Amino acid sequence: MSDGRRSVLVVLVDRANYGRLKPVMQAIAEHPDLELRVACAGTMVLERFDQPVRVVREDGFAVDAEIFLELEGSSPLTMAKSLGFAMIEFAGELQRIKPDVVLLIGDRYEALAAAIVAAYMNIPVFHMQGGEVSGSIDESARHAITKFAQFHFPATEQAAQFLARMGERPDTILGVGCPSSDLAFSLDPRLADSVVNGRGAGAHIDVRRPFLLVVFHPTTTEYGGERAQVPELLGALDALALPTLLLWPNIDAGADHISKTIRTFRVSRGHAWLRTLTNLTPENYLKVLANAACAVGNSSSFVRDASFLGTPVVLVGGRQDGRETAGHVTAVPPKHDAIVDAVRRQLGHGRYPPSTLYGDGGVAKRVAEALARLTPYVQKRLAYVSDVPAAE
Amino acid sequence: MSDGRRSVLVVLVDRANYGRLKPVMQAIAEHPDLELRVACAGTMVLERFDQPVRVVREDGFAVDAEIFLELEGSSPLTMAKSLGFAMIEFAGELQRIKPDVVLLIGDRYEALAAAIVAAYMNIPVFHMQGGEVSGSIDESARHAITKFAQFHFPATEQAAQFLARMGERPDTILGVGCPSSDLAFSLDPRLADSVVNGRGAGAHIDVRRPFLLVVFHPTTTEYGGERAQVPELLGALDALALPTLLLWPNIDAGADHISKTIRTFRVSRGHAWLRTLTNLTPENYLKVLANAACAVGNSSSFVRDASFLGTPVVLVGGRQDGRETAGHVTAVPPKHDAIVDAVRRQLGHGRYPPSTLYGDGGVAKRVAEALARLTPYVQKRLAYVSDVPAAE
Amino acid sequence: MSDGRRSVLVVLVDRANYGRLKPVMQAIAEHPDLELRVACAGTMVLERFDQPVRVVREDGFAVDAEIFLELEGSSPLTMAKSLGFAMIEFAGELQRIKPDVVLLIGDRYEALAAAIVAAYMNIPVFHMQGGEVSGSIDESARHAITKFAQFHFPATEQAAQFLARMGERPDTILGVGCPSSDLAFSLDPRLADSVVNGRGAGAHIDVRRPFLLVVFHPTTTEYGGERAQVPELLGALDALALPTLLLWPNIDAGADHISKTIRTFRVSRGHAWLRTLTNLTPENYLKVLANAACAVGNSSSFVRDASFLGTPVVLVGGRQDGRETAGHVTAVPPKHDAIVDAVRRQLGHGRYPPSTLYGDGGVAKRVAEALARLTPYVQKRLAYVSDVPAAE
Amino acid sequence: MSDGRRSVLVVLVDRANYGRLKPVMQAIAEHPDLELRVACAGTMVLERFDQPVRVVREDGFAVDAEIFLELEGSSPLTMAKSLGFAMIEFAGELQRIKPDVVLLIGDRYEALAAAIVAAYMNIPVFHMQGGEVSGSIDESARHAITKFAQFHFPATEQAAQFLARMGERPDTILGVGCPSSDLAFSLDPRLADSVVNGRGAGAHIDVRRPFLLVVFHPTTTEYGGERAQVPELLGALDALALPTLLLWPNIDAGADHISKTIRTFRVSRGHAWLRTLTNLTPENYLKVLANAACAVGNSSSFVRDASFLGTPVVLVGGRQDGRETAGHVTAVPPKHDAIVDAVRRQLGHGRYPPSTLYGDGGVAKRVAEALARLTPYVQKRLAYVSDVPAAE
Repeated sequence: MSDGRRSVLVVLVDRANYGRLKPVMQAIAEHPDLELRVACAGTMVLERFDQPVRVVREDGFAVDAEIFLELEGSSPLTMAKSLGFAMIEFAGELQRIKPDVVLLIGDRYEALAAAIVAAYMNIPVFHMQGGEVSGSIDESARHAITKFAQFHFPATEQAAQFLARMGERPDTILGVGCPSSDLAFSLDPRLADSVVNGRGAGAHIDVRRPFLLVVFHPTTTEYGGERAQVPELLGALDALALPTLLLWPNIDAGADHISKTIRTFRVSRGHAWLRTLTNLTPENYLKVLANAACAVGNSSSFVRDASFLGTPVVLVGGRQDGRETAGHVTAVPPKHDAIVDAVRRQLGHGRYPPSTLYGDGGVAKRVAEALARLTPYVQKRLAYVSDVPAAE
Repeated sequence: MSDGRRSVLVVLVDRANYGRLKPVMQAIAEHPDLELRVACAGTMVLERFDQPVRVVREDGFAVDAEIFLELEGSSPLTMAKSLGFAMIEFAGELQRIKPDVVLLIGDRYEALAAAIVAAYMNIPVFHMQGGEVSGSIDESARHAITKFAQFHFPATEQAAQFLARMGERPDTILGVGCPSSDLAFSLDPRLADSVVNGRGAGAHIDVRRPFLLVVFHPTTTEYGGERAQVPELLGALDALALPTLLLWPNIDAGADHISKTIRTFRVSRGHAWLRTLTNLTPENYLKVLANAACAVGNSSSFVRDASFLGTPVVLVGGRQDGRETAGHVTAVPPKHDAIVDAVRRQLGHGRYPPSTLYGDGGVAKRVAEALARLTPYVQKRLAYVSDVPAAE
Repeated sequence: MSDGRRSVLVVLVDRANYGRLKPVMQAIAEHPDLELRVACAGTMVLERFDQPVRVVREDGFAVDAEIFLELEGSSPLTMAKSLGFAMIEFAGELQRIKPDVVLLIGDRYEALAAAIVAAYMNIPVFHMQGGEVSGSIDESARHAITKFAQFHFPATEQAAQFLARMGERPDTILGVGCPSSDLAFSLDPRLADSVVNGRGAGAHIDVRRPFLLVVFHPTTTEYGGERAQVPELLGALDALALPTLLLWPNIDAGADHISKTIRTFRVSRGHAWLRTLTNLTPENYLKVLANAACAVGNSSSFVRDASFLGTPVVLVGGRQDGRETAGHVTAVPPKHDAIVDAVRRQLGHGRYPPSTLYGDGGVAKRVAEALARLTPYVQKRLAYVSDVPAAE
Repeated sequence: MSDGRRSVLVVLVDRANYGRLKPVMQAIAEHPDLELRVACAGTMVLERFDQPVRVVREDGFAVDAEIFLELEGSSPLTMAKSLGFAMIEFAGELQRIKPDVVLLIGDRYEALAAAIVAAYMNIPVFHMQGGEVSGSIDESARHAITKFAQFHFPATEQAAQFLARMGERPDTILGVGCPSSDLAFSLDPRLADSVVNGRGAGAHIDVRRPFLLVVFHPTTTEYGGERAQVPELLGALDALALPTLLLWPNIDAGADHISKTIRTFRVSRGHAWLRTLTNLTPENYLKVLANAACAVGNSSSFVRDASFLGTPVVLVGGRQDGRETAGHVTAVPPKHDAIVDAVRRQLGHGRYPPSTLYGDGGVAKRVAEALARLTPYVQKRLAYVSDVPAAE
């Protein structure tokens, strides 16, 4: 901060992170008292995930660090080792970049690594989407990040209350809302054919007719379970036989099993209705979600972004258990018949009214303003202790 | 657990860990339904810290893994990198040992690494000493470990309440008390001269006459501050000029500054009253603490173990801020005059009555019993959510 | 070696390693004075490479360690970091397994990591295929492994001479020949249709009619060059339009570029003649090579194994520059016309007489015998120094 | 090299490295076609070794990277892991600094790590002191670095010949001589009392009267042997009872045993004649060596630097076995009587005439000139192959 501006290092660890933080990055870049720094890590930099970091650069942001941290293997062992390796790498970059504050989002292990390392290096952490509840190891990671974060910007009122109940000081909970709402509520929903069919592989999808959007990640706390769950899901999709756009899973333990099952399935069946895609820009992802007749799977985006857009969702399995949902979500176990039935019911229902449960569309500016005005501090202390000194 | 017993991997990361867990290790080893496995990491295996792992072996415990994870440097950067490296190493050992459950204690980064790695590998974590409040980064690490732990054995009633308020399920909080009380309340306090003078360097200390015990660790959230704090402390000790036994600090960021300041001081002054020691067995440490006229510094042991023994304590600086203390503790800022005054007052007061605030002396058996009877589970969820399924 | 037998840890880092060392592993397992230990690392354990470790187990070998060491990225940076990570992981496994001697082969970075770590841990290293000459970074890695290896079993007479000229003591050069010749000279070359068409993707290949076998790895010292080289190769194959079986490349820097180019090409063209496969057992690989009308690419196997089998080879680009070749090889630059012409000439020529340049088919037993009789030593010294003490 | 100058990254991994490369760094900094970059790693940055990096900065050099890579433990296991960690860290720094060429010296594992990583990242390596012969693992490391280095600047004629015999292309062997000769031959040998007695601990040494200089490092290939060797050495020094300045050992496996033995010895004996020191600037080290009546131990500096200065040397143990020596060296086994006798004989002999075996005092300028004029290339190939293409 040689020029007096506060430097904010935004940590992006997957394409979904960027989809949510892009409006915040713009607001930071435009704020006179803030300097934007950007670190892209995890799948953001991997060719196998189509290097979403390129989209960040194409959107005009300078990227200060590309961090490779994923050890191949897609098992609990390699995920744990990647987490350790991530810390080593983030520590080096933080030492080099020396930001005034780190801003990160969500509950992935890469974000956990960045949060812990920043905390041990006495760099204040600003965390978005704390206080939510879900399944998978993400549930623990999210709350642990909270415990290392000096400041919070939760997405919902309930999440804000939960943060306070967990012992976070009320004055460090800076506002409410997910910035993905900013993109969603200002979206031009018209979807060009080329967005879906210009890349990827498989069947051509007519975007003017009903299609499904499918994303299915592992639930790491049920590692191995995906070997049974994915065939149920694919079987259900095969029974439905609707045009289907499937995005490949993330890199959590079990993801290789999911990908392999899909590839094998694709070779034997499904050429008629299945298209697969690796990556979409934030805007194009929202357009696809806005135009899907139903979203099927277990992405947190189906809880969050689909609520803004009113897209019907069938949530499959335990990965999002416990999350607050608007009315657009039907949760089912990862079973063939249950999935088929639920999708048919959602198709019969059609679109839902937009919800502001996760944000009102004006979040990014509030976040940037909070980042500019907050007084950083280092030492945290459980707020239950009455004599906690105020952040000076 | 090929023989039907539940295997418990006890993780020891410094000599203080062992001082507290030794009674628990004995109780596990003696329990018919439990199998004891032991991993020694961090300073436990380092020659510079006198390899406390040797004491573990001399006490008759088999050690399943010796884990070297400390990157030299003693700065926030190297501490953060050591934490990442610790995860890589713990992950490999957990994969090899495959315990049914991991038992760990406290708030050090090495323990944090073990807890996170176990959680990501779906191995249930049993955490002792959660729910307490202190200063330094330990405060955040402790609560983050809580968020990755499936079961808790807090030391005090207040800590148990804080854990529940933080959203831990009441049925996973398994009891109250620190097992260091078991050792303390059964201690034969007679202290042989050789314990203090048989090793180490510096002045001979007459253990039958009043002496001070000094331990001063870094407060990492004030990294660099130790450069000013230690001269204040040493100056105060020089003014007091009482026979003083000083134990070298731990390995946190800043420890090298502390050690260097002490070494330089020792060369120029203090030969008449200062003795330094690297390591003591758990029992000998308690004997020394029980015989000290006053303990000076910022070890959590001065809050906890000294309370059982009634030893007067002058707590210096912010490292233990917020901890529950019995009446034996006087807290002062790290300033020459304040330290001198407080020590003189404590010497004038003399010993305090024993306290059971941190444990009643019968903890280890209860812990072993809980370990044997608990039903492990993997998926955690914030207890605020009303529909949390019970641990099946 | 608690039972008096010498324990030999065989390190396998890719499917080609196993294809060559399988006969040696059998000979070690059958030798009364030797105990076989096996570590599988690198792509051997990766799902993306079809986990060749499973073939090892299916062949009846116990696997003592599975080592995940590949950092995703496929760039010089991530390759270098993977090499470092490999050392950390190999060191831990060597400490655990404590073999009397390590046996490894070739010139990959994973093997380099194992060799260096063993040397620093004072475990004697036995290296196969030293003294050869090639392009890519493998050239340096191979000779560096030589400098850390106490004993050598080169594949050719020239390689043996080169080792001696490099300063290796003549008494540590234990024999000549590549054990892949054992498999090749005892091969039943009949190739079942299912071997080629039972797995993989793309066109069906009639194995009774002429087909091409293609393997193209990156030349890391020309990193980035593969972006231009692969289109030339694929264009040439497209012009030839013969049934073609392509095996995916290894994991060296640049491999992701190669794979991506192939995948993109496959979507747009080539469905009529192109089949891709991930992995073959050692025997099936040799059968495919034995039945191919011509092998095209830059695998060292095309120099070595194809020489035993007499399969015509078109060697593309600089990766094998400098290697000794039998008459079956035509080397061309990675240019469309040159490749097309050379393949046509090789198809016109037809099969070559078998060569014993790289081995006579009785190597494995000699290797096992040498392993049993050699006297391990630790301290190496350049043989140019006249007063070198003999291995005691 | 944005400004057209060739950027040379000088890698310093211990104080001895700096003592030799300082004249080269000055020559690079002054050369109009070169840009000096500096990375300090290993013990250069450690407080325990008195942070020699500070001397580099005090000499006016900017330091581009401080690399912490030493895992505590001082065993073969931790040395091997440190080597792997070093690669990970060097890779990150090379990616960031992007030098045109890397310059490194000697045979330490930290230098090996830097050389390998640079080679895998296609950055040409310039190596000094290749082609020499010694004991310890350094012997293998040195020749392996040679195999990854594109250019060589050996210290002696014999080393140059050995490099050529090992298959290095003659045109890549750029000159002869060690730059430590530059410092030595221009040295003002007057030694101030404060250099020796202003820091460190133990007896005061009268620098105008005969004193011994002692440095004893581990021989890693005899790991554990130091436990017997050091008492022999200390016993011999005690028998001699001459004023003795001892420098602490390096960080190789076994060093902690050496340090601990010295510390224990110092407590019980030797206060009358023993002084210990952690670090000296390059000039002060040479002054001390120039003024010592005899140098005792196994530092390569005693072979090299003492030859320029004519200081009598007693070389103890196998660590330098095979090195070319001038007449000033007497080699003895690490045995009490042999050491005592040899020191007495050397004291009786007195100083030797200066030797130019390892350099003529004008090396640094020649090195800088070679760095400026050489044409970098990447692909190496054993020169035995007659058709090696010239470096283009």
